[in-house]
Amino acid sequence: MEKIIDKVTSITRIKVNKCDIQKILASILRTRNFWGVLDLSNLPFNVVVQAVKELEKNGLLKLSNSYISLTKKGMEFCQREKITPPESFTCPFCQGRGISTEKLKDLLERFKKIVKDRPEPIIQYDQGYVTEESTISRIALMADRGDIQGKDLIILGDDDLVSIAASLSTFPKRVVVLEVDQRLIDFINSVARSEGFEIETYHHDLKNKLPENLVSNFDTFLTDPPETIAGLEVFIGRGLTALKGAGSAGYFGLTLIESSLKKWQEFEKILVGNFKVAVTDIIRDFNTYLNWDYLLESIRNDLPPLKRKPKINWYRSSMFRIETLEDTSIIPNEDVSGKDLYVDREALIYTKERWRDVD
Amino acid sequence: MEKIIDKVTSITRIKVNKCDIQKILASILRTRNFWGVLDLSNLPFNVVVQAVKELEKNGLLKLSNSYISLTKKGMEFCQREKITPPESFTCPFCQGRGISTEKLKDLLERFKKIVKDRPEPIIQYDQGYVTEESTISRIALMADRGDIQGKDLIILGDDDLVSIAASLSTFPKRVVVLEVDQRLIDFINSVARSEGFEIETYHHDLKNKLPENLVSNFDTFLTDPPETIAGLEVFIGRGLTALKGAGSAGYFGLTLIESSLKKWQEFEKILVGNFKVAVTDIIRDFNTYLNWDYLLESIRNDLPPLKRKPKINWYRSSMFRIETLEDTSIIPNEDVSGKDLYVDREALIYTKERWRDVD
Repeated sequence: MEKIIDKVTSITRIKVNKCDIQKILASILRTRNFWGVLDLSNLPFNVVVQAVKELEKNGLLKLSNSYISLTKKGMEFCQREKITPPESFTCPFCQGRGISTEKLKDLLERFKKIVKDRPEPIIQYDQGYVTEESTISRIALMADRGDIQGKDLIILGDDDLVSIAASLSTFPKRVVVLEVDQRLIDFINSVARSEGFEIETYHHDLKNKLPENLVSNFDTFLTDPPETIAGLEVFIGRGLTALKGAGSAGYFGLTLIESSLKKWQEFEKILVGNFKVAVTDIIRDFNTYLNWDYLLESIRNDLPPLKRKPKINWYRSSMFRIETLEDTSIIPNEDVSGKDLYVDREALIYTKERWRDVD
Repeated sequence: MEKIIDKVTSITRIKVNKCDIQKILASILRTRNFWGVLDLSNLPFNVVVQAVKELEKNGLLKLSNSYISLTKKGMEFCQREKITPPESFTCPFCQGRGISTEKLKDLLERFKKIVKDRPEPIIQYDQGYVTEESTISRIALMADRGDIQGKDLIILGDDDLVSIAASLSTFPKRVVVLEVDQRLIDFINSVARSEGFEIETYHHDLKNKLPENLVSNFDTFLTDPPETIAGLEVFIGRGLTALKGAGSAGYFGLTLIESSLKKWQEFEKILVGNFKVAVTDIIRDFNTYLNWDYLLESIRNDLPPLKRKPKINWYRSSMFRIETLEDTSIIPNEDVSGKDLYVDREALIYTKERWRDVD
């Protein structure tokens, strides 16, 4: 086992421990679906894939097409180590969000109809959108926390079309979207026109500083940041720059698939140590993403299941809520250049270019 | 409004902002129950009480017996400021926990029966226990996260009797309790005897260092710490000292009633900056406390509703889950002395001694 841990750590350069390998084996005891194992393990994609590869080499599991299962040796190992399949106690009514969309049923139906012709995710902008239920749950969450009713809301990057859901809800006073993808800008504008509400859209790359007229103008921001430390820092920093001051709120997702817990800790240190906000909520698996078309072409494909499009929604993120305090840092509103906001060792897309180097 | 904000800040010495006062007024639009306002405001007790006092002096609200309501002037103010009552989107099936206890229904029933004769909370140890549903939800949460099945569990202070619920569930391999109150030790021991399971109990004050034989022995700890920074640091520190290393988990509650968001941020800084753990979950209002007998004698009583025992469960806490990493700090296992772990300016009990000074 030590050998496998060391191998996975040295190849992925993500620190792996015994519990991680146990989690992967436990997940395989629960499901034969490879993408399900990725979902259940709550570990970086690259760690799970590499560990599966090493476990296969060591005869503990076997792979065929989309399926993964333990060998006799693997089963015996699990018995010896007392590894048992994970049990879910997730509330089936809210899918574990703790938030009900029951009061927003009509909104959900209208939203579903309107977004039918939405632009599909493209690789260029690291896109991938959440289910309609996830988007409406975000509205319900912000409403539950009092962060949207009569408030000024800014969305930083909006392939999830939260701006449309928010406007349909009639909760916010003002909705502003910054988006780099002209297709989304056009779509949001055309929906706003036909539905008769106002969404202010800015064609804007968040690498560039916030338009001055938006600085310190909002009660609430929402964003789905790229998960490098630089990306998180820039996106959340822009959000904070847009907020009015103490008592404002920010919402964003963070996965365990493209972010190790080490990265979570580093980023949380930035939130509470540098930005000086309080983290008030972290809701596990709040956001469920629909599989995006470019997935398979963007990731490593050195295992059979990685060549077949997943049939389940396996990519999920936790929802963070942060709140600004009297002494929350004012972040310089500057362009960033030269920083790669999108790719680090834990990014899905990273594995495409690099796994060959080390295999 | 500025005057009220300044007054509340200067008297409570807790920094108050405009949004805070708005939250209090919004809560009064939702409920006439004074304790309900304390629950809904999500602000420190002393801030709400002092703000209510100032708002009453300024003619925005009135108090009578247990009730609180806005005056005409108060209603007009809310209209002008577009303050609307908070709306709940809490999932009614899991009470917002995201965790279902459906699979543990029998456990809940057995637990309820067994704890009927439990010792009542006493002021000496800052006690106050959670509902049986909250305790069983903790078991379900730990089970959902894979932190209890076949694991070694330590409970640091157990007036909630989590050790009994955990043992009844048969999930953990080992259950250890450290508890300063001999009554609870006796109760837990007698239940363990009559139910025929083993709970290792230690009569122990957490100000004193962890018994050496318990250091680095556990997969999971759970505690309900006193909410001073010193108290949080000592209790969570002891928990971490008890854990085996990377991939272990800790659970504890934190309120918005005795901890301002400023304190949350400071404490979160300790967690991720000093202890170097990752915060993986923060679940709002996970724990609901039953009203404890000594409440009224332990708090300020300078408003009529503060003289009447609450009829609703108003005191709730968020549930934190933390996970240890490779580089989580090893905390010196030492006695602490001279530190007051139980009382700071935000503690309920603080208001008893001090409100007179400033009124």
